[in-house]
Amino acid sequence: MFTLYSMQRSGNSYKVRLTLAQLGLPYRLVEVDILKGESHTPEFLQKNPSGQVPLLEVAPGRHIAESNAILWYVAGGTSLAPEDRIDRAEALQWMFFEQHSLEPNLGAAYFWLALVKGGRELQSHAMDDWMEEGYRSLRVMEDHLRRSDYFAAGRYTIADIALYAYTHLAHRADYDLDSFPAIRRWLDRVAAEPRHIAMDWQPIAVETSQ
Amino acid sequence: MFTLYSMQRSGNSYKVRLTLAQLGLPYRLVEVDILKGESHTPEFLQKNPSGQVPLLEVAPGRHIAESNAILWYVAGGTSLAPEDRIDRAEALQWMFFEQHSLEPNLGAAYFWLALVKGGRELQSHAMDDWMEEGYRSLRVMEDHLRRSDYFAAGRYTIADIALYAYTHLAHRADYDLDSFPAIRRWLDRVAAEPRHIAMDWQPIAVETSQ
Repeated sequence: MFTLYSMQRSGNSYKVRLTLAQLGLPYRLVEVDILKGESHTPEFLQKNPSGQVPLLEVAPGRHIAESNAILWYVAGGTSLAPEDRIDRAEALQWMFFEQHSLEPNLGAAYFWLALVKGGRELQSHAMDDWMEEGYRSLRVMEDHLRRSDYFAAGRYTIADIALYAYTHLAHRADYDLDSFPAIRRWLDRVAAEPRHIAMDWQPIAVETSQ
Repeated sequence: MFTLYSMQRSGNSYKVRLTLAQLGLPYRLVEVDILKGESHTPEFLQKNPSGQVPLLEVAPGRHIAESNAILWYVAGGTSLAPEDRIDRAEALQWMFFEQHSLEPNLGAAYFWLALVKGGRELQSHAMDDWMEEGYRSLRVMEDHLRRSDYFAAGRYTIADIALYAYTHLAHRADYDLDSFPAIRRWLDRVAAEPRHIAMDWQPIAVETSQ
């Protein structure tokens, strides 16, 4: 069984929990509070030198980091992970876009506005850039979703899951999606998938990191 | 034959040219000068709404964006692209790390210091962050390369190519690799691969975007 090191309120961690839920896979969950420094203890850094969650233990002592790489590992061989050459490249394209253009803006804004007390004041110098770049990324997504229901392979895949995580938190990070109707319809479409879980969904047993 | 939209001095574009060279694949090269706005013309934005190079045309009117997604498309089915489940996840992990932690710092510093006239002064407020975060990423890479010759699958793969692009430009972006001996040995190892090309290598025929 997988062990997932995750923070409940982290969008990157949510991607993995959502994928595992979609696939009906059981796992052991270890809650790591990065705000309390739990991802930078010597013990955790030995598992992941980058000091980040999510982190998936796939075999004793063997860990995969980076949320989107974990999605490919977990979903490999299922319809959520397209293996056709062009479909796979398109899914990867959107997942790299997510980590390079969306998450550094919407994710950063969400982190500082929604999770860190006083974060708005601490990061006031950066907010304009996050807003401008974040909206630019949302426009690229809107443009795509006007023509397609999903991001790759013509169906719901891990590319949608990757982009959903922070896009569905946009309103908590001051972004206004009123002028993005195709994105809003896609958010509803993803949330209507069978076995969908909300970000605050808790499995029955949660282990907390020490 | 592929058509590659590329900028000669772009590290992300170099990844694709290096991979194509490694595989001995012929391609048509279209040089796009992003500094002159050539990636934001209406014609180019129709091909790639993100307005970025590299961009690969894989069939008439069908384009793949995001350098690391292009690498998977081009190298798919060759030994450069590991397909074993855990090897693939590790290669992806390092490629997402590259786009999320290395390129936004080393790539940004390289762009403004080496390519943009007066860039150092324009971006002086951001340089400290790029240095601090860039060195943090280099330390994670050094730690890995002390134990392994390559980043994934125990051999030279597109994960190495992805990380090589901006790491081999580090000295042009003010980073000092003196205290990173394992990274310097790995840079030499990559450069010694058969069919390796330098970043300034030019194919015989280059078409320039209008």
